[in-house]
Amino acid sequence: MQRDMPNPSVFFVSDGTGITAETFGNAILAQFDVHPHRVRLPFVDTVDKAHRAVERINHAARNEGRPPIVFITLVNADVLHVIRECSGLVLDMFTTFIEPLETAFGIKSNHRIGQFSEVTSSSRYADRMDAINFALMHDDGQSSRNLALADVILVGVSRSGKTPTSLYLAMQHGVRAANYPLIPEDFSRMSLPSALVPHRTKLFGLSIAPERLSAIRTERKPGSNYASLPNCVEEVAEAERLMRREGIRWLSSTHKSIEEIATTILQLIRPDRLEY
Amino acid sequence: MQRDMPNPSVFFVSDGTGITAETFGNAILAQFDVHPHRVRLPFVDTVDKAHRAVERINHAARNEGRPPIVFITLVNADVLHVIRECSGLVLDMFTTFIEPLETAFGIKSNHRIGQFSEVTSSSRYADRMDAINFALMHDDGQSSRNLALADVILVGVSRSGKTPTSLYLAMQHGVRAANYPLIPEDFSRMSLPSALVPHRTKLFGLSIAPERLSAIRTERKPGSNYASLPNCVEEVAEAERLMRREGIRWLSSTHKSIEEIATTILQLIRPDRLEY
Repeated sequence: MQRDMPNPSVFFVSDGTGITAETFGNAILAQFDVHPHRVRLPFVDTVDKAHRAVERINHAARNEGRPPIVFITLVNADVLHVIRECSGLVLDMFTTFIEPLETAFGIKSNHRIGQFSEVTSSSRYADRMDAINFALMHDDGQSSRNLALADVILVGVSRSGKTPTSLYLAMQHGVRAANYPLIPEDFSRMSLPSALVPHRTKLFGLSIAPERLSAIRTERKPGSNYASLPNCVEEVAEAERLMRREGIRWLSSTHKSIEEIATTILQLIRPDRLEY
Repeated sequence: MQRDMPNPSVFFVSDGTGITAETFGNAILAQFDVHPHRVRLPFVDTVDKAHRAVERINHAARNEGRPPIVFITLVNADVLHVIRECSGLVLDMFTTFIEPLETAFGIKSNHRIGQFSEVTSSSRYADRMDAINFALMHDDGQSSRNLALADVILVGVSRSGKTPTSLYLAMQHGVRAANYPLIPEDFSRMSLPSALVPHRTKLFGLSIAPERLSAIRTERKPGSNYASLPNCVEEVAEAERLMRREGIRWLSSTHKSIEEIATTILQLIRPDRLEY
């Protein structure tokens, strides 16, 4: 019976990094309640490598007794020709969509490999690298210098997700994101750290469910007051009170991935960054 | 004449973050020699928001006198229905590929939004967050503690691209990447920093063209000996000599994006990480 068979393996085959093939394929696979074995085959940019990729795919087909699923983003026509002969179910993003676009643009596609080959010299790439340095220099309130250059300053209690979100905003969007912790001292004064006051409009808060915060802090400092649930309950309540009082927008990071947090922040703080 | 008209605007419409729609669309657009205005419309998850998205698309169509290009990744059937009525050229990744997969898996798709909604509770997501903390704690040789836990330790001269690559490996692949600078003192001794010796098999080198290195360092410290071309020439030559002598694999970061560097390193050092 088909339902007793394991899921077919999934391959992502690309003549570049395979990141696009993987993003494309995983988004589609997320629509199914399946957990297949996934294999990324990057840099398949010669006929020889294509034949080796086909061997791996066909080997899986024989082992599993059914065709693997093969997501491809290939621009090299010779490589494409070889991969298409494999015994998998080939889902070809480029071929499918390029033709209607050729008509829309009124020009032919140029079969360039990947989107990254030329990016290193682009200003967008340079912005991303600069933004990463900025995020590192302004991580966890390390430096108040140049906060005026920040696109956004994330605030929140320790371990609310500020650092990974700042780095993601920098790496993916070239956004200069600083982050600054809200600490018990700020709560006793019930006012923002003074370094932040001139930059109030750039502030964005991250909050988090106390239970989740306590679990995260416990991994770091088991048994500490810092990690204890009562302390986390209090810090989160105080931080939310302070943010509300200061009119700072915030969201809860508890059930959101850094991708979702970053996109939400962009939409609220820098909607212009969603256009380029 | 068509060739005198500007390129049509490009929209990426999603009921999630829009990251997949953007990756998908940009990979396809990279096949054309065009630089259109791009607009990401994330979180279009209600019929009301769908109507507003259609208004924006139709507005662009009227202004530009031609249909915009609309890449969509929509799982909400009602939203999809509204967006399809816009006056753009709609390229629909999900609808196109889900049907053949339903046949292959022998099950129906479940119309879930995005791939991120459930990720925060997954172990893969936790690995990524841990790996980011690891990369930060082991950035630039800050700490030699726990180097044994590293999946890879990047080495190279200052500003050769180690930090962004480490962070990218962590953020995208959950790989624990430390990085450690090679400095003039190492070159005079012509031996590895002693902290690295026990972890030789995990080392991976980044080199860089001296001209590029000098340009990068000049932005940081203009006019310094550190940034001068003769000094960069010497440091790079010494670092490559040391890596060769110690049998350390390396690649040049000069013309590679961090995505390409990271994928190459995975392939060489942790090919298992390309399967999951």
